[in-house]
Parts: sequence; C-alpha cells; structure tokens
Amino acid sequence: MKRSMIKELINTPTINETVTVKGWVRTKRGNKAVSFIAINDGSSIHNIQVVADLEKFSSSLISSITTGAAIGVTGLLVTSQGAGQSVEVQAQEIEVYGTCDPNTYPLQKKGHSLEFLREIAYLRPRTNTFGAILRIRHNMAFAIHNFFHQKGYYYIHTPIITSSDAEGAGQMFRVTTLDLEKLPKNKEGNVDYKKDFFGKPTSLTVSGQLEGELAALALGGIYTFGPTFRAENSNTPRHLAEFWMIEPEVAFFDINDNMDLAEEFTKYCVQWALDHCRDDLNFLAEHYDKELISRLEFVLAHNYERITYTQGIEILETAIKEGKKFEFPVYWGADLSSEHERYLVEQHFQKPVIMTDYPKEIKAFYMKQNEDGKTVRGMDILFPFIGEIIGGSEREADYEKLLSHATKMGIPEKDIWWYLDTRRYGTVPHAGFGLGFERLLLFVTGMSNIRDVIPFPRTPNNAEF
Amino acid sequence: MKRSMIKELINTPTINETVTVKGWVRTKRGNKAVSFIAINDGSSIHNIQVVADLEKFSSSLISSITTGAAIGVTGLLVTSQGAGQSVEVQAQEIEVYGTCDPNTYPLQKKGHSLEFLREIAYLRPRTNTFGAILRIRHNMAFAIHNFFHQKGYYYIHTPIITSSDAEGAGQMFRVTTLDLEKLPKNKEGNVDYKKDFFGKPTSLTVSGQLEGELAALALGGIYTFGPTFRAENSNTPRHLAEFWMIEPEVAFFDINDNMDLAEEFTKYCVQWALDHCRDDLNFLAEHYDKELISRLEFVLAHNYERITYTQGIEILETAIKEGKKFEFPVYWGADLSSEHERYLVEQHFQKPVIMTDYPKEIKAFYMKQNEDGKTVRGMDILFPFIGEIIGGSEREADYEKLLSHATKMGIPEKDIWWYLDTRRYGTVPHAGFGLGFERLLLFVTGMSNIRDVIPFPRTPNNAEF
Repeated sequence: MKRSMIKELINTPTINETVTVKGWVRTKRGNKAVSFIAINDGSSIHNIQVVADLEKFSSSLISSITTGAAIGVTGLLVTSQGAGQSVEVQAQEIEVYGTCDPNTYPLQKKGHSLEFLREIAYLRPRTNTFGAILRIRHNMAFAIHNFFHQKGYYYIHTPIITSSDAEGAGQMFRVTTLDLEKLPKNKEGNVDYKKDFFGKPTSLTVSGQLEGELAALALGGIYTFGPTFRAENSNTPRHLAEFWMIEPEVAFFDINDNMDLAEEFTKYCVQWALDHCRDDLNFLAEHYDKELISRLEFVLAHNYERITYTQGIEILETAIKEGKKFEFPVYWGADLSSEHERYLVEQHFQKPVIMTDYPKEIKAFYMKQNEDGKTVRGMDILFPFIGEIIGGSEREADYEKLLSHATKMGIPEKDIWWYLDTRRYGTVPHAGFGLGFERLLLFVTGMSNIRDVIPFPRTPNNAEF
Repeated sequence: MKRSMIKELINTPTINETVTVKGWVRTKRGNKAVSFIAINDGSSIHNIQVVADLEKFSSSLISSITTGAAIGVTGLLVTSQGAGQSVEVQAQEIEVYGTCDPNTYPLQKKGHSLEFLREIAYLRPRTNTFGAILRIRHNMAFAIHNFFHQKGYYYIHTPIITSSDAEGAGQMFRVTTLDLEKLPKNKEGNVDYKKDFFGKPTSLTVSGQLEGELAALALGGIYTFGPTFRAENSNTPRHLAEFWMIEPEVAFFDINDNMDLAEEFTKYCVQWALDHCRDDLNFLAEHYDKELISRLEFVLAHNYERITYTQGIEILETAIKEGKKFEFPVYWGADLSSEHERYLVEQHFQKPVIMTDYPKEIKAFYMKQNEDGKTVRGMDILFPFIGEIIGGSEREADYEKLLSHATKMGIPEKDIWWYLDTRRYGTVPHAGFGLGFERLLLFVTGMSNIRDVIPFPRTPNNAEF
C-alpha cells in the first residue's frame, strides 16, 4: 500500500477508500471495545484518529502502542462521528515499528514548558509547538528563495571562515587547527599562525555583506542566506551565537529602491506564511499569542511610513514632553531602543516604519554619506512586537569617501583593499539590507525567545546536540 | 526610465522602443564615426551592443568608457545589422557611473587562466566563465529547494558549531573564544575549556546528518543545505576545507525508496540546468568541455543501473583478467577509487550506477546492517566524469545493533546518547543521503577544479576575501 500523508487525508479525504498512514502516536484513549489512537506524521499540526476495534487486535499489540511509539496503520478512511476531527481511519492492520517506554520517554504528557523543551531540543520537533515552528521556518526559507529568484537575483554563498574582520559587527569566534595544548610559537614568543591551517588567524563570519557586494557588482542582484556568528556573551531571549542571515545586494539601486525592495520582501514573506502555514499559525495564535494573526495582517494592510531619523527623534521628544515615559534617553545621536521603535510603529504611526538617514557615528563605515556631513543613507525597518527587523543602506560608492570613512573608523586599508577596489573599478550606486532569519521567525511565529525558533540554539555554555 | 535587464532585451526584444540598460563594459571598439560598446549586467552570459555615434558624445566621455567601467545607456533598441548579436541599442544618452583605469585593472584582456582568476577571486565574478558558473550555482540551489519543497520535505538548519564528533567524517576545525596568547589552564595544566564560550571544546560540523535524523524522525521528511568543514591538509582539485552539503533524510524509507529519491533528485537538478541555464552551459561547453551537454543528457537518458558492491567487484575483477589496468588494487573489502567507479559507469554499463551493500568496515557506524553480518545498506551513486556524486544509506533503526556497532567503531555512548534515543523512542526505518553541492556543480558545469565552482574557496593557506 502506498503511504498517504495525514495532511492530504485531512485536506482532500478519499472517503471509504483503504489508506495506509505511518507516524508517531500522540495519544491513545478508549474503552473495552475500541482504542482511539491519534497519530501524527509531521505533515501537519493535525493528527489523524485511528479507531482500533479491540476484537481485531491482540491486547499485547494494543498495549505496546503508547505515546511516542511509531506505527503504520492500514484501514478504511471514514467520516468521523466524534468531535474534533472530520475523518478517521478504521484500522484493519497495525504494524508497530518502534515502541516507546512510557516510564522514560521525556515527552509523556502535554504542556511541557518551553524551558524544559529547550533542554531536550533533540526531541522537541516531536511536539506540536516545534512541529509548527519548523514547518513555518521551512516555509519562510522557501519564500525567501522564491522571492529573490523571481526577481532574477542570484543566491551567493559567501565564506563562513574568514580572515577579515572589517565589518566590525561584533565579537568573533576563532577558527583553528592548532593544537591548543601545544601551541607553536614564533621567534617573538607569540602564537605562530603560519602553522595554522590557513597560515593566518581566521574567524567565523559576522556578515556576508562585503563579499555579497563583490558579487552584486558583477552579477547585478544577489542575496546571501547563510549562518553568521557573534561571540557575544549575551544570555538574552534576543541573542544567538549562531544564526542565519539573508543579505540582498543590488547594483544600480539607491536607498529608495532599497526601501521598496525591503517592503515588498517582508510583505511577501508574511503573505506566504498566511497563505501556506495557516494551520500552524492558528495553533501558535491559540496557544501563545492571540494577537499573532492580526499582527501579520497589520503588516500587509499598510504602506510602511518612511521617515528620517531626525523626524523620528522629534516625534519621540514631543511624546516625552506630553508625558510618555521611556526607559532609555532620547536625543539626536542616540541609538534607538526597541521601546522607541515600537512606540513609533504601534502608537504614533500605527504602521510599520522605515527610518532613514541616521547619524554617521552610529552606523557602519560602508554607508553612503549624505551631503549634510552628519548623516548616512542607512535605513531600518521597524515592526510591531520586535522593533528593528531589517537594517540596510545605500552603500558609499565613492572610493575616496569610503577610504576616508573606513580610516576614521579604524579599519586599515590592508584589510579591505579588495572591497575598496570595487569602487576603483567600475563603481556604481548600490544598496542592500540584512534580515536576521530568526528575527523574522520571532515575528511570524509570535514566539518570544529566539532559542525557540531555531532547531539547535547556540548560546553561552550551550552547544548541545 | 525604468531599467531593462539585458536578458529580457535579448530574449523578448521590444524593437524600436527606447530602453535604458546599465552594466559594465566588456569591450569597446569602433572607428572615427562610431563606437561599439559591449556591456554586461550579469543577467545573462550575453552582452548587449551599444552603438554610440561620436558626433553625439564628447570625446572625453567616450574615452572614459573602458573595459570594466560602469555605464548607463538610454537609446533605441533596434535590430542589429552586425554579426554576433540580434539587437543593439543606439545610444541617445550615456552616463558613466564609474571609470576603470586600464593601466591597473586586472581583468583587462580576455583569456586569463583559471589559476590567475583564483588569485583575484574577488573580481572573477565579472568574467564570462564565473558569471556562468555562479548563475548555474544559483539555479542548482534553487532547483534543490524546489525539489524537496514539492515533496513536502522541510529544510532544516542543523548546527554549524558542534560539540559532537560522532560522524567521524574527518579532521575538524576547533572553534573558540579563548585568547590563544593567554590560554587559561585547569589544575591538571591542560586548557580549561570551561572558560571557553560554550564551556567545552567545540568544532565546525562535518555533516548535519545526525541532527537531520532527529528532525526526520519527527517531521517525516527533511533536508539540510548548509556549509560543512573538513580540516584535511589536501591541496587537490577535489578538496575544499569549506563546502556546502545537501542531506535529505526520510522516515519510513528503506534503501529502495532512498535510491528512487536520489535518482529522481539528481535527474531533476540536471534537467533544471538544461532547462534554465542553457546559454551558460553552452558557453562552458564551448570553452572548457565539449562533452558537457551530452554528459548531462546521458544522465537523463538512462535508468541508473543498481548493483551490489560485490557484483561491482566481480565486474572489475573480470575486467582486470581481460587486461584492463587500474592504478589502485581491486579486491572485496577495498574502498573503490573514482577510476573504478568511472569504469563501471562509462565503460561497463554506460549508465549511471547505484552501488549498494558495502562491506561494513568501510562505511559509517549508522548504516543498517544486512543479515549476512558483513555488509551494510549503504548506497553510492556513481556518475560519469566524477565518480561518486552521492553517498547514502538506510540507517540502522535497531537500538542494540546501532549501539554495538558504534562501540566497536570507538564512538562512546556518552557522545551520541541523544542520537541513540531516537532508536529507543518510536524508532522507524529511515534513510537518507548526502550530496556535496560543489561535486554536483563540477558535474553540471564541467569544470575540473572544485575551487572554480564556489565563490570564495577555502583551502590550506587560503582564506582570502
């Protein structure tokens, strides 16, 4: 018998036909005549109910079917009389592939805390919550590839191991093949990196942007989608040491093109989730976040408000005068906190906001400088619930300005000569942005801890599984 | 003027309409009356020819247009009278975005060697060859996501930083935040990894398979597509220290399902390349590998021959008796070399081959053991030109057998208890395989050095850009 997936049986049921389903037991209940076994195969948040007439099956078989056991069932698909499901399978044959000891299986009962599930991250994909999150995660990744492919942009794999530290985005992890118990030393008594695998110190990348620009300035439009790393010792619900980033970069784009792209892109992802993950979103909305669906619809319902940083500061200062309290101070030159960002989005404009033209001191060296000498053509997208979801900019295309700004910010020319060369040889206006994949997933799933939207979170003192 | 991409203008020309194209100058030639400027924008291997009437433009503007310069041109799209192109643009306006000093630009002339281009990997996407390769690379990645998405399999991000060394697939890179110049020591005088970021030694992953299995045994079917790392000191055209792997894993699959999936998958990728990358393939065929297209068609034309390892050895031994010479010896128990694999594919069967049931000693601990006690349910797909392109297996689903095999191979239970747990709790038959992305690209592009199919190759003593 060809196996059917539960998703198909529920969505397009072939009533009164014999079907075979295979999956893991979620619950079993019943009476002396019949067992009701709910199984799930990962294709859907929904289980299918198997009805086993106890006269047909040995009691040892039935008793071996416990939560977590893997079984295959062949039987008639019929309309269910019970509440809670539309169809069910009347079992004719049951095969037990793998039992599951009820005395030791960690996922016995329902309603484990998210904290407990983090400790058994290797098993949590078997829960409804993480099944839903991982299906949404897959769908968001697929939507992202689809979006850029349709635009004609090319997916570029920028390097993970890098000898460059030019982005300056944060603390880096060292990568080495040296034996730490017997480090080779040079004449000066320092570690002799000439003996390391790459002949020099190397680290894990914090961003693929600089290499992405190299590709965009040849191929026109590109995007990266890969892991990035920050060795910050931050034990917060917002930080991961290893996370995935999407970084599009487009030649001949100015900041307005970039804003258009980012708005279209984020709306495409949210629309995709509503179109393709509705059951999973409904489950998460019901169990974790009643506002989830309306928040997703809110993003689609509005043109994002486009304001400058200076305008944003003025609005916040006015709000403070009128009695609004913030934890962190507001002044021109300050790096805004998510409380400020969320105020602008949720209270003031009641729309997503794109903020542009930030003070150059709080942004990276590669952003295009405005003629005012004070601001750069950065752009952040601010969302409800999470604040900044995207950061980007038009890039400085002028060689002299870029070199001068890099030097002022302490980045030596010898580290970025190859990047600077793109401005010497056929430079063009171009722009791009970065989206933290897990940041997007926090927004789309409504989860509040970033460790719950990645299969195997890496955080200080945690690299399990 | 809305910008048009060159690919569109060539494929669906809007003759006698005014268009704007932007890109980089590949060549300029001409006479006293007119300049012919070939520009490329990355959307296609093809350039578009711009015809500039010298009466309309200043000589300083025209002389600033050199190879590598970035320009934008607005003009009438007309049918070309010249050989070599179907359409051209009669320039009305030309804007030079960035000049390109002919005295220092490294990509002046045509026909640079691949070795030279590797040294300037940051610029090589601007060449025809690497434009073609990177467009194909994008298309193969997109085809892979499409294939698995249509199957209902979920993309899983397995961890990059790992504290597990269970796969045993090769030398690993250490990841650390310890200051190598001032390593903390414990009481025994060894490195104190408790002070490291993760509180223990960590490395870069060599495979996502084990974590992929965890997800497959909950979600049904999954695939990974991420970077993997081997710190082997191999300076060969086949080895990279950093490369990308695709690893599908499917619950309730046996080895035959796995072979069907792998055959369908590889054919899907090859068909996608022929359907979507024809111009780039033709370019590579013309310049590097005349057999390229026919080799791709060869894969599609045949059902892959399915043989056991034992049958393969017999065929090779017979061939040797009949006078065939191999560099490496052939005997039952030997790990086959690509010369053997290619003989079976290219000479003997003249079809791609799937070889199964390998001696257990030469395969990994997680492969399902056959009842003969000698072989395991591994499966490799052998292709013309490159030999093994895919390696996979049905996995050992039995807890006791898996534990016993792991122990015999020196893998301590404490390192893989979480993996073993999947066989204690609801174990099911399952299978999967791994495809090295760059291996696929070597086959599809016909390139012979793996450093030429990844944007920024990492090899011993090379982590540039």
